Amino acid sequence: MIIPPELLSFLKEEGKFFIATHVNPEGDAIGSSLALSMALESLGKVTVLYDKDSIPEFYYFLPGHEKFTHSIPSVVNHTWPLILLDCNTLERAGIEGLSFKYSAIIDHHEPAPRFAERGRGARPGTEKDFGNIRWIIPEAAATGMMVFYLIKELGINITREMAINLYSAIAIDTGTFRYGNTTAEAFRIAAELIDAGASPAYISNSLYETWSEERFSLLIMALNTLEIRDAVAITVVTREMYKETGAAPEDTESFPNFPGIMKDIKVSALFRELDDNYWKISLRSKGDINVARIATLFEGGGHKNAAGYKIKASLESAKEALLRAYYGHSHKPQQT
Amino acid sequence: MIIPPELLSFLKEEGKFFIATHVNPEGDAIGSSLALSMALESLGKVTVLYDKDSIPEFYYFLPGHEKFTHSIPSVVNHTWPLILLDCNTLERAGIEGLSFKYSAIIDHHEPAPRFAERGRGARPGTEKDFGNIRWIIPEAAATGMMVFYLIKELGINITREMAINLYSAIAIDTGTFRYGNTTAEAFRIAAELIDAGASPAYISNSLYETWSEERFSLLIMALNTLEIRDAVAITVVTREMYKETGAAPEDTESFPNFPGIMKDIKVSALFRELDDNYWKISLRSKGDINVARIATLFEGGGHKNAAGYKIKASLESAKEALLRAYYGHSHKPQQT
Repeated sequence: MIIPPELLSFLKEEGKFFIATHVNPEGDAIGSSLALSMALESLGKVTVLYDKDSIPEFYYFLPGHEKFTHSIPSVVNHTWPLILLDCNTLERAGIEGLSFKYSAIIDHHEPAPRFAERGRGARPGTEKDFGNIRWIIPEAAATGMMVFYLIKELGINITREMAINLYSAIAIDTGTFRYGNTTAEAFRIAAELIDAGASPAYISNSLYETWSEERFSLLIMALNTLEIRDAVAITVVTREMYKETGAAPEDTESFPNFPGIMKDIKVSALFRELDDNYWKISLRSKGDINVARIATLFEGGGHKNAAGYKIKASLESAKEALLRAYYGHSHKPQQT
Repeated sequence: MIIPPELLSFLKEEGKFFIATHVNPEGDAIGSSLALSMALESLGKVTVLYDKDSIPEFYYFLPGHEKFTHSIPSVVNHTWPLILLDCNTLERAGIEGLSFKYSAIIDHHEPAPRFAERGRGARPGTEKDFGNIRWIIPEAAATGMMVFYLIKELGINITREMAINLYSAIAIDTGTFRYGNTTAEAFRIAAELIDAGASPAYISNSLYETWSEERFSLLIMALNTLEIRDAVAITVVTREMYKETGAAPEDTESFPNFPGIMKDIKVSALFRELDDNYWKISLRSKGDINVARIATLFEGGGHKNAAGYKIKASLESAKEALLRAYYGHSHKPQQT
C-alpha cells in the first residue's frame, strides 16, 4: 500500500489535528480514529477526536473511546487542519459550517462520483471533491489497515492500545476474517497487532459476546416466528415481545443474520412492529441478491446485502408485498 | 514448533500409511488428515484414510473427503504403520483388535495421564502410552497447524486442496480466529494458506452458512429449552426432537455456542439424549473457566474452552451434577 508522500509530510509538519469520522460510528471508524490520534500524540501533536454521534456502549472496551467529543470544541477554528477518517465527505461526518486550514481524507469507501464522471450536479471543488489530500483505497478491507501502514511508515511504535483499536477496526469490517474482503494481508496485519498486544479472544468476546439475557430471550422469541417461503426467511418482532422480554428495538440488530445460516435461504427479513399496522423491515441477502433494490421499491435503502424499509400495512400484507418484490427482483435479469 | 526428527524419518522411509482420526470427526480431524494424506501421496506414498464414523455432510466441501473409509480395508494388516491424527489413543479412533508395525501420533489434545502420574489404573506400555512416536503439542490451536509445519518441513509444496483442508482445520478449532487459543502464529499460517489458494469467505460460508432447515428447526427447539442457572446456560436436545425436526445428532455441533453470546454466561452446556437416562454433555466456556477439568470429573475430556462427557442419570440429576462440578471448579484456586 503506497501512502501519499504529501500525507506523510502533512502529518509530520502540523502540530494539531481535528480528527473526525462518520455519523453512527462503528468499529472501523472508532478504532482507526483512536489509533491515529494516539500515534500522532505520541509524536507530541495535539489532536481533537470528533464524532457527531455518541459511541455505542459495546465499543467502550476500545482504549481511549472517552476521548471522543460529540460537539465541536470552541478552540477548533479555521486554523486547524482536518483529518477525515473512514468517510470522504463532511456531510457524512455531520460537519456543517466549518472551514479548515487543510484537509486530508483517509478512507476505504468508494468516493462519491466526481464532476467529470457525473452527468449533472456537483461542480468541481465542491463537497464531492472534498479534501486537499484524498487517500482513498476501496480495495482496503478496513480504514484500520490503512492507518496501520501509516503509523508504521511514520516510524511510530504500535502500542497495545493502538493494536486493540486497529485489530477491532479490521475485525469489524471483515466480519472477523470471514467476509470476501479478507485477504492474506489482513491476516498478516492482525498477526503483527497480536504481537503488539491485541488479544483475538478478548476483542471477539468484547465485540460479539455482550448480549443481555433479555436480548437473547427476544432472539428466541423472534426465531419462533420463523416462516420460510421459497428462499425467503421471515421473522417477526412485535411490540408485545419487548414488554415480555424487557429488550429494546436496538437489540434486534443482527437478528436477521441468524436464519441466513440456512443454505437454501437467500434473503432473511426481520419484520419489526413500529405501531399498529406499521412495520420496519430489515433485509439481509447472500451473494448476488441485491436487497437494496427491493428496499428502494418501498422507498427504503441500504447496501446490496443489507437494506431496509418501512411499510404501513397489516403483517400479512407486508409479507406478501415483500415476497412479490422478491419474486419480481429475482426473476428479472440483473444489472451490476 | 520443533518436529521430532524420528517422525520425519518415519514419514520419509515408509511407503504406506494407515491414517486414522477420532470418532465423530470435526474439521480439524478431517482437514488435517486429508492434508497429510495428500502431502504423503505427493511423495508417491500410499495412504488409507480411516474414520470409524461418517463425515458430516457439511464437511463435503473439503477436497478429498470422499477418500475416507469407514471400515478397515482387508489389505490393512500388521505390516502397515499407523498415523493417528487429532487424538492419542486407539480407543478414541474406535480401532479395536488391530496391531500395527509402528505408530506415530500427531495431536494437540492433552494426553491421558501416564502410569507415573496416575494413582491407579493403567500399566506402562498400555493404551495411555500408545504410540512409538508421540508428537503431542497441547499448546497448538489445531492439529492442522502441526500438519502445516510438518508438510513444509518435508519440503512439500502446499497445494490449494491442502490449503483449504488446513485452513478449515484451523478455522474450526479457533472458532474462526476468535477463541483464546488463537495466536499470531495461527494468523501467519492462515495468511500462507490464503496465498496457497484457501479463500476465507468461501470456507467460512461453507462452514457456517450451510445449515439445513431441519438443523435450524432443531436449534430453535433446543434454544426453547434454555435454562440459566447462575452463569451456566443449559440447553437440551432429546431423541424426540430429532424425530420432530428430521435433524440428526451431528447437527447439534456448535449449538452450545449460541447461548455463549450472552455476556453473563461463563459456561454453556448442551445435553443430548443418547438413550433413556443417558446423556452426552458438550461444554463451552469463556476465558479462564476450564471445562476440560469439569469433563474429566465425569471421565470425559477435551480442551480448556470446549469439552464433553457422558453421564447415566436422569436429566435433572445430570444437570445438578454439572452445576455441582461447576461450583466446585469455579470456587477452587486455579492451577495453570
